[in-house]
Amino acid sequence: MAHGIKALVFDVFGTLVDWRGSIIREGEAWGRERGLTVDWAGFADAWRGAYHPSMNRVRKGERPWANIDTLHRESLEALLPKFGLEGMSEADKDHWNRVWHRLDPWPDTVPGMLALKPRMILAPMSNGNVALLLNMARRAGMPFDTILSAELVRHYKPDPETYQQAPQFLGLKPSEILMTAAHNSDLVAASRQGLRTAFFPRHEYGPHQVRDFKAEHDFDFVATDLIDLARQLGTI
Amino acid sequence: MAHGIKALVFDVFGTLVDWRGSIIREGEAWGRERGLTVDWAGFADAWRGAYHPSMNRVRKGERPWANIDTLHRESLEALLPKFGLEGMSEADKDHWNRVWHRLDPWPDTVPGMLALKPRMILAPMSNGNVALLLNMARRAGMPFDTILSAELVRHYKPDPETYQQAPQFLGLKPSEILMTAAHNSDLVAASRQGLRTAFFPRHEYGPHQVRDFKAEHDFDFVATDLIDLARQLGTI
Repeated sequence: MAHGIKALVFDVFGTLVDWRGSIIREGEAWGRERGLTVDWAGFADAWRGAYHPSMNRVRKGERPWANIDTLHRESLEALLPKFGLEGMSEADKDHWNRVWHRLDPWPDTVPGMLALKPRMILAPMSNGNVALLLNMARRAGMPFDTILSAELVRHYKPDPETYQQAPQFLGLKPSEILMTAAHNSDLVAASRQGLRTAFFPRHEYGPHQVRDFKAEHDFDFVATDLIDLARQLGTI
Repeated sequence: MAHGIKALVFDVFGTLVDWRGSIIREGEAWGRERGLTVDWAGFADAWRGAYHPSMNRVRKGERPWANIDTLHRESLEALLPKFGLEGMSEADKDHWNRVWHRLDPWPDTVPGMLALKPRMILAPMSNGNVALLLNMARRAGMPFDTILSAELVRHYKPDPETYQQAPQFLGLKPSEILMTAAHNSDLVAASRQGLRTAFFPRHEYGPHQVRDFKAEHDFDFVATDLIDLARQLGTI
């Protein structure tokens, strides 16, 4: 194909899956069963709010490597008292922490991937750990060929090592790999490592979205969603 | 399920794919087009014969890490003059080296994996590099959930680190993971790291097979092939 793209690597949280809606939906069902009233949107936002600071402590060497399951669990512990959930059992904490393994894809995610799959290698390129991404993919039906994760190289995005694993493990040139994300900053960092870039917008933060409404750089592809990107790549 | 197995990790060369038959078939077709007469069975056996010695030099620290694509290529260079192929072009050498990415599965491999897939996580646990295993899986239709490879930890089997990556990356207990191989020694090494074990025999060396006709240790499962193993695990 003229564009020479052989593999798509995807940001996952926000780009392929709706973390906020998924956590709110699961929280509301869980609370209803127990007669609990909780601000689940606030809960989701606060939990996600701890994500970048927790990774940055690892990135800056302030603590040794810890995967996202571990960081999510630590953030959860700090969060529970703020939402009146300090009495949660150990089993429930464990179950809740794995909600990140059960996030729902956006409506175009799986159809878009299925349209790409026959002609493109597909892998996540995510800060999520391997088990999280693998369990999410199995549940949602996302047909990845393998899991690429910060955990494999013990560097979180936007560290260069994270992006560099894609050409290394896929056995491709960086220019044959298309980093796909709904986040401008992720694509800028990928581009610095020679990967090509594709952007489409999501509204993952709901009413609190403050950035990434549109492409702010000269990316190789700008699309409306993953199905539109598959069309632009000539696989539909 | 009573056995508690949540993931199968597979030896690949010999266990899932028929390297010898695949290389002979491709060699005969390639030679026919060029009017060349080559002992392709001998070629396949000699190339595979260099496999363990080349990995052992890495395992013993006699050279820095090199993946299987690199080791295969070095072995190929040494091999060509012995089979009258010393004039092979660079493009043909590259194409030939990637024959290891194009190995055919045994007849029961893909049906067995498809029967296991809805209830079991599936991954290779192979000395093959990630790109080799991924390209092979896409071509053959082997539905892996992710690729586990010696390359990810830079240790070849039977080094313990190779097997230890399975519980680490899959987020499971070693006892929830079933190492599946047609080689007794691979299973013994996996068992030392707490993985459970399943054996079925193959005849990958054709007339030169000298071992692994049957299970020689007390493995958790002994089957006739992968479909039989899926039955024993209750997924058929």
